[in-house]
Amino acid sequence: MAQKKLEGAGLRGQVAGKTAICTVAALGHTGLTYYGYEVEDLAENCEFEEVAYLLFNGELPNATQLEEYKAKLADKRDLPTALKEVLERIPASAHPMDVLRTGVSMLGNLETEASFAEQSEHADRLLAALPSIICYWYRFSHDGVRVDLNTGAKSIGGHFLHLLHGKAPSELHEKVMHISLILYAEHEFNASTFTARVCASTLSDYHSCITGAIGSLRGPLHGGANEAAMDMIENWKSAEEAEKEILGKLERKEKIMGFGHAVYTESDPRNTVIKEWSKELSQDAPDDTLYQVSLRCEEVMWREKKLFCNADFFHASTYFYMGIPTKLFTPIFVMSRTTGWSAHVFEQRADNRIIRPNAEYTGPGSRKVAPISER
Amino acid sequence: MAQKKLEGAGLRGQVAGKTAICTVAALGHTGLTYYGYEVEDLAENCEFEEVAYLLFNGELPNATQLEEYKAKLADKRDLPTALKEVLERIPASAHPMDVLRTGVSMLGNLETEASFAEQSEHADRLLAALPSIICYWYRFSHDGVRVDLNTGAKSIGGHFLHLLHGKAPSELHEKVMHISLILYAEHEFNASTFTARVCASTLSDYHSCITGAIGSLRGPLHGGANEAAMDMIENWKSAEEAEKEILGKLERKEKIMGFGHAVYTESDPRNTVIKEWSKELSQDAPDDTLYQVSLRCEEVMWREKKLFCNADFFHASTYFYMGIPTKLFTPIFVMSRTTGWSAHVFEQRADNRIIRPNAEYTGPGSRKVAPISER
Ligand SMILES: CC(C)(COP(=O)(O)OP(=O)(O)OC[C@H]1O[C@@H](n2cnc3c(N)ncnc32)[C@H](O)[C@@H]1OP(=O)(O)O)[C@@H](O)C(=O)NCCC(=O)NCCS
Ligand SMILES: CC(C)(COP(=O)(O)OP(=O)(O)OC[C@H]1O[C@@H](n2cnc3c(N)ncnc32)[C@H](O)[C@@H]1OP(=O)(O)O)[C@@H](O)C(=O)NCCC(=O)NCCS
Repeated sequence: MAQKKLEGAGLRGQVAGKTAICTVAALGHTGLTYYGYEVEDLAENCEFEEVAYLLFNGELPNATQLEEYKAKLADKRDLPTALKEVLERIPASAHPMDVLRTGVSMLGNLETEASFAEQSEHADRLLAALPSIICYWYRFSHDGVRVDLNTGAKSIGGHFLHLLHGKAPSELHEKVMHISLILYAEHEFNASTFTARVCASTLSDYHSCITGAIGSLRGPLHGGANEAAMDMIENWKSAEEAEKEILGKLERKEKIMGFGHAVYTESDPRNTVIKEWSKELSQDAPDDTLYQVSLRCEEVMWREKKLFCNADFFHASTYFYMGIPTKLFTPIFVMSRTTGWSAHVFEQRADNRIIRPNAEYTGPGSRKVAPISER
Repeated sequence: MAQKKLEGAGLRGQVAGKTAICTVAALGHTGLTYYGYEVEDLAENCEFEEVAYLLFNGELPNATQLEEYKAKLADKRDLPTALKEVLERIPASAHPMDVLRTGVSMLGNLETEASFAEQSEHADRLLAALPSIICYWYRFSHDGVRVDLNTGAKSIGGHFLHLLHGKAPSELHEKVMHISLILYAEHEFNASTFTARVCASTLSDYHSCITGAIGSLRGPLHGGANEAAMDMIENWKSAEEAEKEILGKLERKEKIMGFGHAVYTESDPRNTVIKEWSKELSQDAPDDTLYQVSLRCEEVMWREKKLFCNADFFHASTYFYMGIPTKLFTPIFVMSRTTGWSAHVFEQRADNRIIRPNAEYTGPGSRKVAPISER
């Protein structure tokens, strides 16, 4: 892939602040670390709740701390009646990211952050409540069911799958959810996290920061890419068809969702991990076409453009094999990234200056208002 | 006031993109221009709807265009039932900015932007609907009234005052609303507008951009400053008391809300305008204490710190004299700034690259995950 264009736009390569939370292609290697731990290491050895604890506290929990933390989160899954009533008024046709954005914003009305001393409590609450918010709406609007939010699930990913499918997930599926949520948890100054930090820099409340971040994650250039990738690959019946279609798109200079990255230049470390799990799930499935199609897309994009899969591309087939509807892909990203967003909000607040850049002016010169009758 | 610190934090002085919409302390003078027109000139000679038209189209309307535009906006004031039902579920104790954030987000579920070709329609709709959203909630939660949203008012500011007070406002009050809304309409890359642009840069939808911007405007370092200023000055019974209290605050190194600015160094052009109208309204009022208190604060802050009033400070007394509850001050800012936010979203979309800066890493070095039993 060509050298990154650092000038001109998008603040690419410009330092917008400090962070102790995460490195992307820094710290002496090309990968991704959370508080010094490589994401592959965390994905292999931890549950998502351990990583959430790490992001909120700077250190991994020991066994007792983890047990307590998981019990605390499990206690916070139910939703206030007024929030349920709001979710019931959102039509099935709505974009699920709009539902989450609205649900989080509504929660901010009902459980407002009265002072920054409460920030961790609100972050835990939201982390626990997000699967409930999205599934309560989804099941009500799509199946006409008022789902019981007390699943007794042992993990956040398990709670989500249980609510969605009406029964406890397999061990394999719960494990893959841990990994997926760990991979998506944090990524330095990406656009949605940066949105949360700009909001935090005005000393606004916690729910405003997260609501804003959800809105940014929704975009197809950001979190929306996993859904966009799925919409593309699900139409292709074979690897050969995929190759032909991708080549056509490249010729027409279309963007291929799930490829490329604003910071990585050679590969995305998250892809290696999730691709393995997509493969494993495909072997379990009646038909592995989607995995084969995905593999071919990866080959062709590298051969033709030296563009590599980012975190989103093999997430599409992974989620598909777990029976998750495409429109809920980006909401899972929210369930995960809310940990990173929260950590960045806390960090911004601890050493704050309002984020207020300048612009280069390209508009008309000075002029006078003419009376309306003379315009 | 001391030289601005441009390094280190908050992207101060760094160029984050281009704009043709607005200059702040540029274009050969120290003030504020919208598409080349000085804000004082616009405030003196225009209605707010003319300025909204300017921000959306780059040119002021002629008489026919303005008439048509106002009629179009007046037609878009009513709210969908589902949105009213959501607003009825938000308690009176909620922060009105959280209500607006939720209301706009909910509208995005009911009237989703299906393609960017629709963007102007959504901006007009929101501009017309914002006074309805805030007042419907306010009157329902505070007075138990389901207010009729068809006021027949000739202007956005008039519609707001009519809904709030249950009757058409005086000509003077409607005029002052025009001026206030013009002054607040646009301000280049301030934190809330920058939030909207970061969101737009992921190619997210219109309602996500505005919802995020509302969250950032809520902060006391940004739009929340007018309410914070009011909370401070309303306690002071005389100019002398104000002076004593301000001196005490400065000695304790407290921030005084409504003073200082991230870009202006000597004065804020919007203050000169709104201060005159605060004075005029105070002369109409039974008691001009709040104006006298405000004047003294301005004197003391300049004498002691060379800090000047920004747009927010004299807005507090201005709104007070118009009988507007303090908690609705920042929502008025939203009703106005939504024009600037929208213009920046359109501009970002027209020439986009995702906004994704870098961070300077300050965290721990590389480490390995220890087995949980050994932590
Ligand atoms: C992620 C992304 C937004 C990064 O944007 P960026 O930093 O502006 O991209 P770069 O500067 O590295 O792009 C370099 C060139 O490769 C092209 N390119 C980048 N990603 C591409 C993709 N997915 N498909 C086709 N071309 C792509 C760019 O158009 C650019 O070409 P140009 O110089 O002719 O304009 C971009 O790669 C993209 O849009 N990817 C698809 C969306 C996606 O998967 N997002 C999820 C990210 S985790
Ligand atoms: C607007 C504001 C956020 C700009 O922030 P900024 O660009 O970081 O401010 P500056 O760099 O110009 O500040 C320079 C110095 O003046 C001080 N200062 C600025 N505004 C101040 C205020 N309102 N009261 C007391 N001191 C203030 C700063 O603390 C700083 O002091 P330091 O160097 O000892 O830290 C800031 O002035 C402020 O917080 N004002 C009060 C909130 C407000 O009215 N906001 C509405 C803005 S329209």
